[in-house]
Amino acid sequence: ECTFDYVLVANTDDTDLQRGADLKYAAKAFIKVLKNKKHFSVTTEIHSLHLTHPAEPLGLGDKTIPSKSSSAKALAAADVKEYKHENKIFYCLRAPDKVFERYTYLIKVSDSCNWTKDVLTQSTRIRIVHFILHKAYTASKEKLCDLIASNVFECAFCLHEDSKQKYLKEKWAGWNKLFIKQPFKDIKKYFGEKVALYFLWLSWYTWMLLLASVLGVVVFLYGLAVQKNNTIIKEVCESNITMCPPCDKRCQVWQLSDTCMYAKLNLLFDNEATVWFAMFMAIWTTVFLELWERKRAKHVSKWKVYDWCEEEEELILKVINNRTRRVEQLEHSYLQSTIILILVTLMLMIIIGLAHVLVVFRVVVSPVLSEVDSAFFSDHADIVTMILGAVLHYITIQVMAKVNRRVARKLSKMERHKSFASRHKSFTVKMFTFQFFTLFSSLFYVAFFLGRINGYPGNYTRLVTWRLQECHPSGCLTDLFIQMAIIMLLKQMINSIFEYLVPKLKKIKNEHLMKKRVCGGSRKNRCDNQHDIEMGDKVPQYIIDNYNLTETDDYSLFDEFLEMVMQFSFTTIFVAAFPLAPLLALINNIFEIRGDAIKMVSLERRLVPRKTNNIGVWTQVLESVGGMAVLANGLVIGITSDFIPRLVYRYRTGPCAAENETLNCMSGYIRNTLSVANWTHEAVRKDFQPRQMVVTDTNVTVNQCSYRDYRSSEDYSLTSQFWLVLAVRFVFVILFQHVVLLCKFIVRWFVHSNPTKVTNKRVKAKHIRLKEELDEMKKKKLEESLQKDWL
Amino acid sequence: ECTFDYVLVANTDDTDLQRGADLKYAAKAFIKVLKNKKHFSVTTEIHSLHLTHPAEPLGLGDKTIPSKSSSAKALAAADVKEYKHENKIFYCLRAPDKVFERYTYLIKVSDSCNWTKDVLTQSTRIRIVHFILHKAYTASKEKLCDLIASNVFECAFCLHEDSKQKYLKEKWAGWNKLFIKQPFKDIKKYFGEKVALYFLWLSWYTWMLLLASVLGVVVFLYGLAVQKNNTIIKEVCESNITMCPPCDKRCQVWQLSDTCMYAKLNLLFDNEATVWFAMFMAIWTTVFLELWERKRAKHVSKWKVYDWCEEEEELILKVINNRTRRVEQLEHSYLQSTIILILVTLMLMIIIGLAHVLVVFRVVVSPVLSEVDSAFFSDHADIVTMILGAVLHYITIQVMAKVNRRVARKLSKMERHKSFASRHKSFTVKMFTFQFFTLFSSLFYVAFFLGRINGYPGNYTRLVTWRLQECHPSGCLTDLFIQMAIIMLLKQMINSIFEYLVPKLKKIKNEHLMKKRVCGGSRKNRCDNQHDIEMGDKVPQYIIDNYNLTETDDYSLFDEFLEMVMQFSFTTIFVAAFPLAPLLALINNIFEIRGDAIKMVSLERRLVPRKTNNIGVWTQVLESVGGMAVLANGLVIGITSDFIPRLVYRYRTGPCAAENETLNCMSGYIRNTLSVANWTHEAVRKDFQPRQMVVTDTNVTVNQCSYRDYRSSEDYSLTSQFWLVLAVRFVFVILFQHVVLLCKFIVRWFVHSNPTKVTNKRVKAKHIRLKEELDEMKKKKLEESLQKDWL
Repeated sequence: ECTFDYVLVANTDDTDLQRGADLKYAAKAFIKVLKNKKHFSVTTEIHSLHLTHPAEPLGLGDKTIPSKSSSAKALAAADVKEYKHENKIFYCLRAPDKVFERYTYLIKVSDSCNWTKDVLTQSTRIRIVHFILHKAYTASKEKLCDLIASNVFECAFCLHEDSKQKYLKEKWAGWNKLFIKQPFKDIKKYFGEKVALYFLWLSWYTWMLLLASVLGVVVFLYGLAVQKNNTIIKEVCESNITMCPPCDKRCQVWQLSDTCMYAKLNLLFDNEATVWFAMFMAIWTTVFLELWERKRAKHVSKWKVYDWCEEEEELILKVINNRTRRVEQLEHSYLQSTIILILVTLMLMIIIGLAHVLVVFRVVVSPVLSEVDSAFFSDHADIVTMILGAVLHYITIQVMAKVNRRVARKLSKMERHKSFASRHKSFTVKMFTFQFFTLFSSLFYVAFFLGRINGYPGNYTRLVTWRLQECHPSGCLTDLFIQMAIIMLLKQMINSIFEYLVPKLKKIKNEHLMKKRVCGGSRKNRCDNQHDIEMGDKVPQYIIDNYNLTETDDYSLFDEFLEMVMQFSFTTIFVAAFPLAPLLALINNIFEIRGDAIKMVSLERRLVPRKTNNIGVWTQVLESVGGMAVLANGLVIGITSDFIPRLVYRYRTGPCAAENETLNCMSGYIRNTLSVANWTHEAVRKDFQPRQMVVTDTNVTVNQCSYRDYRSSEDYSLTSQFWLVLAVRFVFVILFQHVVLLCKFIVRWFVHSNPTKVTNKRVKAKHIRLKEELDEMKKKKLEESLQKDWL
Repeated sequence: ECTFDYVLVANTDDTDLQRGADLKYAAKAFIKVLKNKKHFSVTTEIHSLHLTHPAEPLGLGDKTIPSKSSSAKALAAADVKEYKHENKIFYCLRAPDKVFERYTYLIKVSDSCNWTKDVLTQSTRIRIVHFILHKAYTASKEKLCDLIASNVFECAFCLHEDSKQKYLKEKWAGWNKLFIKQPFKDIKKYFGEKVALYFLWLSWYTWMLLLASVLGVVVFLYGLAVQKNNTIIKEVCESNITMCPPCDKRCQVWQLSDTCMYAKLNLLFDNEATVWFAMFMAIWTTVFLELWERKRAKHVSKWKVYDWCEEEEELILKVINNRTRRVEQLEHSYLQSTIILILVTLMLMIIIGLAHVLVVFRVVVSPVLSEVDSAFFSDHADIVTMILGAVLHYITIQVMAKVNRRVARKLSKMERHKSFASRHKSFTVKMFTFQFFTLFSSLFYVAFFLGRINGYPGNYTRLVTWRLQECHPSGCLTDLFIQMAIIMLLKQMINSIFEYLVPKLKKIKNEHLMKKRVCGGSRKNRCDNQHDIEMGDKVPQYIIDNYNLTETDDYSLFDEFLEMVMQFSFTTIFVAAFPLAPLLALINNIFEIRGDAIKMVSLERRLVPRKTNNIGVWTQVLESVGGMAVLANGLVIGITSDFIPRLVYRYRTGPCAAENETLNCMSGYIRNTLSVANWTHEAVRKDFQPRQMVVTDTNVTVNQCSYRDYRSSEDYSLTSQFWLVLAVRFVFVILFQHVVLLCKFIVRWFVHSNPTKVTNKRVKAKHIRLKEELDEMKKKKLEESLQKDWL
């Protein structure tokens, strides 16, 4: 079994003697602080109890309390063992049991933390030592993080427990365990509640995705089924309509029937089933979150942390670490809030701005390239632009991820939080917001603006002289679909694989290096040192093993969460455009769970186990995403898709509305959605050059071309139908939102966030405790009265 | 000072001897139960402690606990004093201090209830006695409520404390204290936290109303100011447009200029300022609720009940009252949830149905009356209908209030809640929902349906043969305005006055009766009884005084809250239609506060003081009202008012859009909103009789008349402008909602629901407590080790 709580690795620079000595000195100073804490141990403390302390400002004057210096230091006294290994010194720490005694007692008497008898496990030890270690400071006020930054220490980490690690590897962390239930209780014991809740959440999310992906596949199949005999597809494929050139100069008029394939693709996901599926997914989000609350409550009550309060524990740790230190006062200034709000807004504007720079890039580069001398570029201008755009987009995302992290950390530092939990919360919200906008703003552009602000022949909206990009000829939803498919398939897969492979490769590399050294010349060297007292004991192999793993920090789990919540956002927010998203997410997650497990158990250093009873601010983030999903899906179906125009055509403007029942209700729809531009019109002639009006295949010059809009062919003003469709679109958005709201309400009515069982158990436990307390009180009273009698 | 905790008044029926004896016997039996609890007192209990109890199922087997019967009964032992008065017996109770000792101890050790040293005040005593009294049952399993229902007891009440009552009267409960700060701390001490929070909330609401009403008045004045030189008013007043008959047969065509006055009235509140005001009020609601949370937190932390948990206290009381009784298990069945949801929906449908019955009533009665033989009725058909409708509406509201209460109580009983708090919560939500729909469904009809589903000349929507009611000729908002004015002015005033006067008159009447009796023949009788032992002591005057006051129950405070929350709903939900609502609410509330205070202090029996730290489910109710306010105000401005059509006219269809800058932008607006019906059209001829087409004043027969709609005069189809306006209306609704949401978000960002001060204080207090506990632990350990040494 592992006997140390924490390991500090100090650097000793061999090349520069002076620097090496300085480093060594600084490291020793810090270790001395830790060791010093031991000096004032039990004996000192008991004596000091008899001293009457001078009256404290907090009204404790009349009590006997230990002298300041002694208790404060005695509490965190630590066992330190030193090993030399190559050019590093390994300081292995084990805290005295005294610290934990106090911790246990305070947890018991405090108001807000559940108390259970088996509170002191190795993970609790690590957490406490972690806290004390990171709060200790040397005479020059340097904390551990400062020392790590100034290279005195290379790193500080806690150790994996061999037997348990093996157990988890066997039970859980392996690719062959893909479909085996996760042992949450063991995970909780080893990695703490926070990690266990992450896996619990992830597994619940994956289960719920199963339902969503089955329905998504059904919707997809429905889309395939309705393609046959579909009037709209037939009309597109058999049409002889000539469409207007989609871009300046190099584009020519084209035949609508060319997009026959795309029309089929478009109908795959732009059909009535999608509406219901989008609505289902909006409600699914609610059900998912409600049921998750239940699941959480059940496990958390099983783990006996239902009423656990992280901030209370931190307060207790503070008292243990340094009894005399005043608790820091929270400060709140409206100025600071304002500044941070403004900074966040600015950052968001920059992020959104970048997305639009990409849009402008695509608009500008394509025509510029096509006029370049090189035949290759001018011929494949579109493809080159697309590839360039995609590469740029990917680079932006990668760079912004780093920038976002730094900005979010800076901002949450500015807010001067007093506890780890609240700092983490603030960082989480900011980082999520930034990342969300980084990843989604281009999607929002595609969904709601692309092709909607383009103008019409004779009056195109222009960026200086360049025409804006048009929607895909088969409908604006196609663009969104393609974007979503790329993100879900490529980005997700690549990320998941990278995330797993990088630590894996690092481990292999480290082990390889180690082997080489041991077998090579260095072995003799090490043997020479073996006889030094304390220094130079051979470092136990398991510590070296731990040292060789990938580093982890407070944000390791955050990254996993962020990734999954982003995926959740993609899956729910634009699900209307891509019903297969849940399926892809499902497949990814099945592997993700085990990948993360393997990473945590065997590829990364052990995470500091955190005790908590919820996934923190992520709950609120998920709820906001749920809210946005309702809005976005409503807008995608109402505004982006052709669902509403088709509905209006079927019931109001089409042949069925005119009671002409011999025709198919949708016949004539395609022609109805198109308007005609006459080249004879002066303004149109400005936009289209004569060369553009030639049909490529037949070389026929046309005088008229069509474009998707509801405009009169005379004065190009919007027709009544346009406004009708627009009104219905907005009515749909409003209705969709409120119907989903109603459904959410009904779901909430039925699904309580606390299962009855859990509530009952908790009440019963409380009842028992109260009865016990009552009995104890009576017993004490009896004893007192007996004592009195006896006297 | 008052020395009794509670008074039970038993009936002795003098007229029927047998019945009288039965009643007496039943009352005595119950009193015996209470007295009996005394029998097993301290002595019994101490002895029983030495008995080892047979193993209990809850794992307490190895502890010595008192025998079941003794402890359970001993706990609630009560001092009972009996008085005879006229034909009643007054049992005055005082519980033994033992009960409170246990209560205090359990509160201290329990997890969820804050503990303060001054926990045992008279109000706490009353609360505990109230609980025990209502849980006690006779051998035949009859509880106090059953006995009251079967007339054994007339009533049970707790007593006012003379000195404190006087103090409150002087400091707070008087009409001359209208503008003096309320002594919340004293209120809390006397009536408990729940009542104090009510007054705190009410006073905060009133303060916030001040701001809203100032702005409301400004908006009103702005409306007055813009009337001069307003193009629209000028156009209405100077128009020569003939309007179509608003109803069948008896109505004739009329001149638009006749509504000149109303056009002015309409513009008073249907102007641009209202939009901003409505938006302001939506945000005001959020700010109000956020700031209320802060205020609450501040006071609650001052009162040291920040972490108080009502349900936990109830559990403690249960343990004190009957240690052995198992705690009841919560049951949850989806069937039951479904049934209750269906029943609630049914009830709501009935309520909404009733509102529509009134609409139908008005549609039908008016034409029917006008054809009645009586000249009076046929001449004043409209007015008679209006009065009849109003009376019917009032009766419906009054009847439904009773019905709603009964149904809500039944439904929340059906849910079988286990604690008072949750039962009360469920009742509150249901009752509020029912009352809300009762009062608002007619307003919703007026706001969103009236005049919108009427059809047009030649194609009127008809109920069997009757045309639906039209909007007021000056705009649909006028109807809403009138309705709101009536509710806010009349209903509110009448209610407030009644609420105060009824107990006042009752008290006067009772005192009068009492005086008469004392001065009359009954005095001698009473003197004869004076020498009976126990029975027939003269009842202390203060008990008689308390007895003479109006009864109160658990729902007394609920009624006050309901009234105020309803007012809050009126003030916020349709504020766009009536900007003066906040002012009227403000005036009402200034009086309401003192009226309620006087009522509680001098006119009603003392409320059982409840300890709590929030206003319960009302917070959520207020938040829902806030949400609805955003929706409703958006809809009123977008759909009901003429704001959008005017906007569209100004910027798109009017003279300014055509760059004709010589004209006023709004000139021609009135004519633009009207469509023309030709009597030559066959369908129109069916709707309008020749007699109706005669202008009353001039006796000229017209061939054309105008009506408010955007329809072509040829085929009566809706014009492009109609759809344009409709689309803009819906866009406005969506925008309004989301802009307000954004504002709410920003408000939340700045205003934390916990003031920093409160958080700091709480953390500090916790810190101090933890340090104390640590010292105590050390002390104990030291003592133990010393003892060991000594041995």
